[in-house]
Amino acid sequence: MDMIIRNQVQKALEEDAPWGDITSELLIPVDSESTAHLTSKSNSVVCGNDYFIMAFLLLDEMAEIEEFMAEGEQAKPGDIVMTIKGNTRKILQAERIGLNYFCHMSGIATEVRKIAILLDGTDCNVVDTRKTLPHLRHAQKHAVKVGGGVNHRMDLSSAILIKDNHILAVGGVTEAVSRAKDGAPHVMKVEVEVKNKDEAKQAIAAGADILLLDNMTPDEIEEILELVPEHVITEASGGINPTNCRAYAESGVDVVSMGWLTHTVKNADFSLEFE
Amino acid sequence: MDMIIRNQVQKALEEDAPWGDITSELLIPVDSESTAHLTSKSNSVVCGNDYFIMAFLLLDEMAEIEEFMAEGEQAKPGDIVMTIKGNTRKILQAERIGLNYFCHMSGIATEVRKIAILLDGTDCNVVDTRKTLPHLRHAQKHAVKVGGGVNHRMDLSSAILIKDNHILAVGGVTEAVSRAKDGAPHVMKVEVEVKNKDEAKQAIAAGADILLLDNMTPDEIEEILELVPEHVITEASGGINPTNCRAYAESGVDVVSMGWLTHTVKNADFSLEFE
Amino acid sequence: MDMIIRNQVQKALEEDAPWGDITSELLIPVDSESTAHLTSKSNSVVCGNDYFIMAFLLLDEMAEIEEFMAEGEQAKPGDIVMTIKGNTRKILQAERIGLNYFCHMSGIATEVRKIAILLDGTDCNVVDTRKTLPHLRHAQKHAVKVGGGVNHRMDLSSAILIKDNHILAVGGVTEAVSRAKDGAPHVMKVEVEVKNKDEAKQAIAAGADILLLDNMTPDEIEEILELVPEHVITEASGGINPTNCRAYAESGVDVVSMGWLTHTVKNADFSLEFE
Amino acid sequence: MDMIIRNQVQKALEEDAPWGDITSELLIPVDSESTAHLTSKSNSVVCGNDYFIMAFLLLDEMAEIEEFMAEGEQAKPGDIVMTIKGNTRKILQAERIGLNYFCHMSGIATEVRKIAILLDGTDCNVVDTRKTLPHLRHAQKHAVKVGGGVNHRMDLSSAILIKDNHILAVGGVTEAVSRAKDGAPHVMKVEVEVKNKDEAKQAIAAGADILLLDNMTPDEIEEILELVPEHVITEASGGINPTNCRAYAESGVDVVSMGWLTHTVKNADFSLEFE
Amino acid sequence: MDMIIRNQVQKALEEDAPWGDITSELLIPVDSESTAHLTSKSNSVVCGNDYFIMAFLLLDEMAEIEEFMAEGEQAKPGDIVMTIKGNTRKILQAERIGLNYFCHMSGIATEVRKIAILLDGTDCNVVDTRKTLPHLRHAQKHAVKVGGGVNHRMDLSSAILIKDNHILAVGGVTEAVSRAKDGAPHVMKVEVEVKNKDEAKQAIAAGADILLLDNMTPDEIEEILELVPEHVITEASGGINPTNCRAYAESGVDVVSMGWLTHTVKNADFSLEFE
Amino acid sequence: MDMIIRNQVQKALEEDAPWGDITSELLIPVDSESTAHLTSKSNSVVCGNDYFIMAFLLLDEMAEIEEFMAEGEQAKPGDIVMTIKGNTRKILQAERIGLNYFCHMSGIATEVRKIAILLDGTDCNVVDTRKTLPHLRHAQKHAVKVGGGVNHRMDLSSAILIKDNHILAVGGVTEAVSRAKDGAPHVMKVEVEVKNKDEAKQAIAAGADILLLDNMTPDEIEEILELVPEHVITEASGGINPTNCRAYAESGVDVVSMGWLTHTVKNADFSLEFE
Repeated sequence: MDMIIRNQVQKALEEDAPWGDITSELLIPVDSESTAHLTSKSNSVVCGNDYFIMAFLLLDEMAEIEEFMAEGEQAKPGDIVMTIKGNTRKILQAERIGLNYFCHMSGIATEVRKIAILLDGTDCNVVDTRKTLPHLRHAQKHAVKVGGGVNHRMDLSSAILIKDNHILAVGGVTEAVSRAKDGAPHVMKVEVEVKNKDEAKQAIAAGADILLLDNMTPDEIEEILELVPEHVITEASGGINPTNCRAYAESGVDVVSMGWLTHTVKNADFSLEFE
Repeated sequence: MDMIIRNQVQKALEEDAPWGDITSELLIPVDSESTAHLTSKSNSVVCGNDYFIMAFLLLDEMAEIEEFMAEGEQAKPGDIVMTIKGNTRKILQAERIGLNYFCHMSGIATEVRKIAILLDGTDCNVVDTRKTLPHLRHAQKHAVKVGGGVNHRMDLSSAILIKDNHILAVGGVTEAVSRAKDGAPHVMKVEVEVKNKDEAKQAIAAGADILLLDNMTPDEIEEILELVPEHVITEASGGINPTNCRAYAESGVDVVSMGWLTHTVKNADFSLEFE
Repeated sequence: MDMIIRNQVQKALEEDAPWGDITSELLIPVDSESTAHLTSKSNSVVCGNDYFIMAFLLLDEMAEIEEFMAEGEQAKPGDIVMTIKGNTRKILQAERIGLNYFCHMSGIATEVRKIAILLDGTDCNVVDTRKTLPHLRHAQKHAVKVGGGVNHRMDLSSAILIKDNHILAVGGVTEAVSRAKDGAPHVMKVEVEVKNKDEAKQAIAAGADILLLDNMTPDEIEEILELVPEHVITEASGGINPTNCRAYAESGVDVVSMGWLTHTVKNADFSLEFE
Repeated sequence: MDMIIRNQVQKALEEDAPWGDITSELLIPVDSESTAHLTSKSNSVVCGNDYFIMAFLLLDEMAEIEEFMAEGEQAKPGDIVMTIKGNTRKILQAERIGLNYFCHMSGIATEVRKIAILLDGTDCNVVDTRKTLPHLRHAQKHAVKVGGGVNHRMDLSSAILIKDNHILAVGGVTEAVSRAKDGAPHVMKVEVEVKNKDEAKQAIAAGADILLLDNMTPDEIEEILELVPEHVITEASGGINPTNCRAYAESGVDVVSMGWLTHTVKNADFSLEFE
Repeated sequence: MDMIIRNQVQKALEEDAPWGDITSELLIPVDSESTAHLTSKSNSVVCGNDYFIMAFLLLDEMAEIEEFMAEGEQAKPGDIVMTIKGNTRKILQAERIGLNYFCHMSGIATEVRKIAILLDGTDCNVVDTRKTLPHLRHAQKHAVKVGGGVNHRMDLSSAILIKDNHILAVGGVTEAVSRAKDGAPHVMKVEVEVKNKDEAKQAIAAGADILLLDNMTPDEIEEILELVPEHVITEASGGINPTNCRAYAESGVDVVSMGWLTHTVKNADFSLEFE
Repeated sequence: MDMIIRNQVQKALEEDAPWGDITSELLIPVDSESTAHLTSKSNSVVCGNDYFIMAFLLLDEMAEIEEFMAEGEQAKPGDIVMTIKGNTRKILQAERIGLNYFCHMSGIATEVRKIAILLDGTDCNVVDTRKTLPHLRHAQKHAVKVGGGVNHRMDLSSAILIKDNHILAVGGVTEAVSRAKDGAPHVMKVEVEVKNKDEAKQAIAAGADILLLDNMTPDEIEEILELVPEHVITEASGGINPTNCRAYAESGVDVVSMGWLTHTVKNADFSLEFE
């Protein structure tokens, strides 16, 4: 069992039933068994299988679960993703939490897949941000990967990203990047936000590993990219959406990051159908 | 300090910085102080103030925070909701988590407010469901209230809701409702999903407190409502959206519940601007 | 495994052995196996089986446990409720915690059963209160149900109960009940404490679902009940005990609530006998 | 703030309000302030002050609390133990949890005091056992001390107590005590249960520090005590109650232990009266 | 499964992989299986088996582990202590945490064993202190036992140790010991630090169970021991090391305690070799 | 307050006093105040100030603490690092835990400082590893930084490090590095262990960011470095110690990593002296 997923799902189950599921305890015999199918109602990328399964296993370790579709597969209406066989009370209690994770994660994966397809044929990847919903970073970033995207840094501790306020505090891009390069662990990259050609030059000269090009047009980016040596990675962000992402990708930027992938989400439509 | 909010926000801060904020530690002097403004970039209902404040206070208990707009107020672009004055490193670390809560909650409140306005003048309320994102039920249900909606049951332990699988298990609406009425605590209501007039009659006769009318048209609901005595509450659900919610409300139903309010969300656009 | 019970019992085991069971580690061979019987020493209602079992399984997941008596059954001296077969050290370590839960819960169930028998033939149920011992609410309220009682609200979040201080704060019963009915989720009942006929009338007119009749005699209650329509539930509380509960029940009140059921407790006498 | 008490009371508050106090949120203005008095309704030993205070401070760190009676003092009806001044909503939310601890702990202290008085003038102390209610050991054992008793071992890790099953496992009292003396940390005493004179002799010869004389009459104990050198402590247990405890004490035994002090409890009667 | 060890190891695994093991997830097939051997690279006492095993089982409950050497055995270079067979990703993730515990604990056991051998033939035991590394007390004190030492008190709650500041606060050794003897649970010993013969006399007269002779030479201790009756235990501490410990032991003291056993540690050299 | 440090220190205090500090409770008046000085007994680098302070503040939030020496300063015998003024009982309870952290962290910083001085004038840094003691990674890695070293990756989630088993699993260095570069987040570096010139060439060609040169002599390393382009970082590890580290540094390698910095530790000698 994955420890991260177990911890997450257990807390979600506790949130949903501080004193148990009173309806099922009143109406369902304690030893009743059922079979239910996780069924797609729309066209979506399947994602969240392990979260879904965990919800059932944590309540009924004897539940038998069969997976018919793997994460990343494209489900169409009527497709059965999994079948659960186990204690009816426990299935009814796990159902909502399992679906809350699964539909949310599949929703994200589905949107990311659309972007990934739009970028197809370019060398540009779609990446996420730290604009994830609280407590859901692991689930959401996993969904981005399943959809075909790549994760940006997981948290404030795992990569250096110098933003405008940091630059302001130390007095300029050159100084900020130099200090970060000096102080940072040798395993960490230094990414820095630059506003124009001049800052980009400074950043490169000071040894930045990644340039963050925020709120620029594809044309502005293209112009800056002329200065950028191959070993420096470039990231575009700010206002990138399905309509304009291809243009950004064609500007030659390495990755486009989009906060909305994880903060503005549409549930994928799956339901649990009892036999 | 609210204990629930403190627990939630603390875990979100821990998720975002298992080993601290390495960028700010490298670049911002340890005793630097800043002032920053939570500023609206769009038209949104303000929501999540206490979550936002908690993120800053948990990292810097000496931070001074001034609130200019209360939850439920309508913000327009440029409006300053709060001003935070405190340690720069801590402000930078709290920023993302504070915004992740605030923009998410304001996004929900803004959508709920739209529905509430559409229902204005009817006797019908908009309510949420258990389709909340894992670990975010408290925050999301609070946002529904701030937006002008009403909460459905908080969890499986606090109200009885008999669905099709329960009915199947006991052999009919009459039996299900009777058993629930007999066994349930006297402080709990019994809600039951009914599919047609006949089931509605059975439910009422057996003493149901609330009828859940799932996936019916406003006309079908209107017809059923003729049978329903005044002390029984009716709830419509299934496919209700901004376009059709008024029609549902005018059918005479007491509440309309919509899962998408909390599972399909659009971030409200706020940012933290440093002085 | 029930998650609530597992969490509770695990913390109890940790409380009892922060560094392990030093006596058994010194004296009992690490692979010694034993068989022990949970045996009744008095006449009691059996309660707490899942808590008892959990104590043993958490320490020795291979332990074999056979249940001979179900919760709610009446044990007499000498009756064997369960037999545990497993690692001797683990049985000795789990013994006290298992018994602490089991004897406490059976003690409560036994007392509640006495009241339930006294109320036999009336339409009145015995219910508990929030006067439960800290951290033991789940176990104690479960014992009340096993004994034949019904649970009052589980916590402050799951039902509305308007008491004198609330009424004082808003300026009267009518105002308090109206506000609560307006603001409360449609799935929640509104209970209100009333002191006399006049307040009862106000409460009913304002739509209260339940009247709490505190510290009244059966006669006073009977008089008030004349005003109460059938769909409004009535609850008597305050000074109700085995001697007078029948009189209260015969007054026509729906439920009698008694704090002492859970705050003033007598252990049932069971012990673990080794073969 | 005491960390143990804070942890305990915080969990108790969380147990009582997973989603907040809905009644007070609907009816009490958010900034309302009140003054309330913890008032005695009976004759009891005051106990649990720090637990009571913690419940209020955890919800309202600005609450002002004045103590008029210290733990261990004897309260009579009408006595005010403490006065709390603070946010009304928070006082109402903390009230029940504060009282649940305080009345339980005072109830225990009151009973222990009665025994302590009965033993007055003898050299015998009353002590508790591990028959405490789960999660309440700290609170209950503290109450025993406040009442005038002494604590037995806090848990399985902090002292060695060899019981019949341990003796059986190693083949006799001499062997059991010798092994324990050899293996035990030099800071730990070795207590052993003995059934008769012969076993007492063996235990003493093997170096036992404490003899547990279980289920013997005062006369039987007196006879055994003739064999016991001064530096060996003796403890009587089993069926000791207010009626016979003096006789046990006069047998010359050093301590009498009684499980019922913590497992069979009577709430002391205190209430919170609002000004 | 031992609950203490499970809790400890789980937190250590979480510390090492907040978001999983990214390298193995990228490179190792999800269902790859491997066999690996815990192999000694030096001469060490084996210790920490259960901690090591737990790291693997918590990540892969299906892992098969075979133990060839028990705790306390002497390993020489090339010896295989255990063999693990299971999921490759999980083995790679557990490896470091398993080794961090195992090598640390074996390192301590190895050092303690050396001291124990030096004391061989005397009646003196080597004991540890509370100078353990934070969060590692259970693991370290276990290693001391495996190495042949004895544990001093586990924590501040389980034995009384009166130091200079306590003596100062109450005004003298006699008063301090008397008060402790009076107030302490009858199951607890009273240990007191004495600086000279005079204080030793006072301590003995007041009933101290253990004398702590701090920072004295073996000769000074020998002189004091002449005053000490047999039932009083003596402990030497302060600057005791492999070179002088035999001299201390021969002074006749019962135990020598050494903080460095747990605060100044040398890893034992073991590695995990894949087949 | 730093949340990570608070969580760590709180657990350490709980480990040391599950039921409080019984000695001080018996002997020190509840309101006694003291002043104590954290005093150096040897030549050490000061480290762990925030951990030390936290131990006192968590038990006595009113304690006044004055710092005379900052982290990283060199203390000599007799130097006072901090002075604490507060409740005597709480100071005595916090003392051991505060010192356990402080002496451990200062011990590490002192050793790291020695290495840093040996490397002075070269371009080579000393770095730590994941061979930290369980639960102490934050404290230990902080001490490495204070001593003048640099941190390697904090955990398995924050950087990619391809070792021999990974290479074996995918069939070669080229394939392993390519796959990692393709799949890894753009913010993450890819480090790979290479055994010889040939593997180094493959790794560089495949785009590795860092080469790990394990168990090579300085001469072997120097030879490989001829192949390595400037933007690729090199790390030497395996058997590096104070005697040979300078030679490694002079080989031109960028960093030398040493596991023993955190797994084989010597306490720095500080004590708390009461006024």
